[in-house]
Amino acid sequence: MDNQKNHEIRLKSRPVGLPTADNFEVAETPVPSPGAGQVLVRNSYISVDPYMRGRMVDRKSYVPPFQIGQVLQGGAVGQVVASNGNDKLKVGDFVQSMNGWREWYVSGGQDVQKFDPQVSIQSYLGAMGMPGMTAYVGLLRIAALKDGERVFVSAASGAVGSVACQVAKAKGCYVVGSAGSDEKVKYLKELGVDQAINYKTAGDLNAAVARAFPEGIDVYFENVGGAHLEAALNNMRQNGRIALCGMIDIYNATELMPGPRNLAMAIGLSLTLRGFIVSNHTDMQADFHRDMTRWAKEGKMKWRETVVDGVENSPKAFIGLFKGENLGKMVVRVGPDKAV
Amino acid sequence: MDNQKNHEIRLKSRPVGLPTADNFEVAETPVPSPGAGQVLVRNSYISVDPYMRGRMVDRKSYVPPFQIGQVLQGGAVGQVVASNGNDKLKVGDFVQSMNGWREWYVSGGQDVQKFDPQVSIQSYLGAMGMPGMTAYVGLLRIAALKDGERVFVSAASGAVGSVACQVAKAKGCYVVGSAGSDEKVKYLKELGVDQAINYKTAGDLNAAVARAFPEGIDVYFENVGGAHLEAALNNMRQNGRIALCGMIDIYNATELMPGPRNLAMAIGLSLTLRGFIVSNHTDMQADFHRDMTRWAKEGKMKWRETVVDGVENSPKAFIGLFKGENLGKMVVRVGPDKAV
Repeated sequence: MDNQKNHEIRLKSRPVGLPTADNFEVAETPVPSPGAGQVLVRNSYISVDPYMRGRMVDRKSYVPPFQIGQVLQGGAVGQVVASNGNDKLKVGDFVQSMNGWREWYVSGGQDVQKFDPQVSIQSYLGAMGMPGMTAYVGLLRIAALKDGERVFVSAASGAVGSVACQVAKAKGCYVVGSAGSDEKVKYLKELGVDQAINYKTAGDLNAAVARAFPEGIDVYFENVGGAHLEAALNNMRQNGRIALCGMIDIYNATELMPGPRNLAMAIGLSLTLRGFIVSNHTDMQADFHRDMTRWAKEGKMKWRETVVDGVENSPKAFIGLFKGENLGKMVVRVGPDKAV
Repeated sequence: MDNQKNHEIRLKSRPVGLPTADNFEVAETPVPSPGAGQVLVRNSYISVDPYMRGRMVDRKSYVPPFQIGQVLQGGAVGQVVASNGNDKLKVGDFVQSMNGWREWYVSGGQDVQKFDPQVSIQSYLGAMGMPGMTAYVGLLRIAALKDGERVFVSAASGAVGSVACQVAKAKGCYVVGSAGSDEKVKYLKELGVDQAINYKTAGDLNAAVARAFPEGIDVYFENVGGAHLEAALNNMRQNGRIALCGMIDIYNATELMPGPRNLAMAIGLSLTLRGFIVSNHTDMQADFHRDMTRWAKEGKMKWRETVVDGVENSPKAFIGLFKGENLGKMVVRVGPDKAV
């Protein structure tokens, strides 16, 4: 590793509106040497996720903001390539961490989690990882989904949405997903949804949702905000539940955007809207892995990744999330799948 | 009763925006005669409530719309003054019903509920009736209030809000109410709230709410919508709950009004917003009456009514709700407290 360099992405300036390449910088640093008790990890894939946009703003939130000039953080999977006497991790171990946006890092072991990949390692950043778990928690706990209900999922072809659609199908639900291209709609049908809406060509979204749900919506899995939330509210059934997972439509807004004009429908229909952060629900992790493994074996759970190559292209991949450039999970390949 | 007439209020036209006197008409009809098995009831007080505005719109909702030319409906308390062989109701019985906006009516007994007044009969239209029960259900079930939490109540001097403040105080909570006049703020302090905000003179409502809740809000009891909901959302604590009871700010809007621009805060803070209709929670009625009676005896539950005289003034009383003319429950006296 002596002749190799590490490359990492640092936040150069805080984005205003949609992030641009100028907000990021690639820094070259020496590959670090593990100190006593430490290991050296080479990342294979790193994750870019919409929620990271929030951490680029300097404000109090559930995670602290990224700092200017410092390397960004995010999910990553990699392999231990050297050990300096760490008693829990050995060379060849696969590890997950929040040490993304970089190629190499050293760790004492506290900030990494060893895993035994049953499927492709990058899927542990997607369907088998945080985004998949978000879909699982959001539907089964936050929205208290019952078998056979009517479920609407927005951003349905994305990392979270595509798992949400399939969890709901696995529970015998009627599932409608919305996405922003015909290719994505086709993908959703391959995943087995009952109907898919291309919101960019559907015209009046409220009417399109109404047509797809003649009997109304029991559960709406909210990834988008804006017109999607209004259309969902307009079509909810009595005692419906809305899992508030994300609102990608507003993450890049430079001023506060109006909320749904029909929120008062929640009163007459006795609706519940509930926001959540997946990291508060780690007690469901064992169930998640058990169910996902079973569904995958039964052919009920599929996924795709959109893979961008090279850590230097991470900002491009990240920005692409807000342009709908991903089908399934967007990941960046920053090293070989198997480094040792 | 032969020389007496009944007066009732009918919907003359559907209001656009704030209702006006022109939307209503007073009709004089003969006092009806009870048929075989029926009783004649003389109403003492009738209720005007903000939710009735929704029924003046011709749309599908949780209750059917009022019909043009027909007598309006709403809560009423009165007394049986004549019986034609009804086997459950006798002359002198006090009854509650939804046969308001009129002085007299006949009933076979199915649409009335006998009650034994422990306090003034008009309070069964307010604190001891539907509005009080709304506060009780909203806090204890919908918002799952825990002892000692921090509670914000809007429209806090109204029929629902004033009970909500006191239920929360009885549960050992820190309670802040908002209302629209200094007189109402004074009343709230008499009810024992920890702080009261006059939202009309407080300037920046968000800042006022922040000052009143340095540690944030656990539970917001929403009666208002608009700027109140935004200010509450901005100041919620992790895992906070919002009981969506009403949004009086938007009931008279002639176009859809924007929702809260900061609804996405519900995600990061893991908030729950839950709408409800009190009539879906009648299983809590026995608990409600038991607790309210005890709190009233202990001096922990007080109430006032704003009484308008004469059934012909019901529209004026109703319109006054939207101008903040009531302190506590707005009722209309349409007959003697005791008719027989």
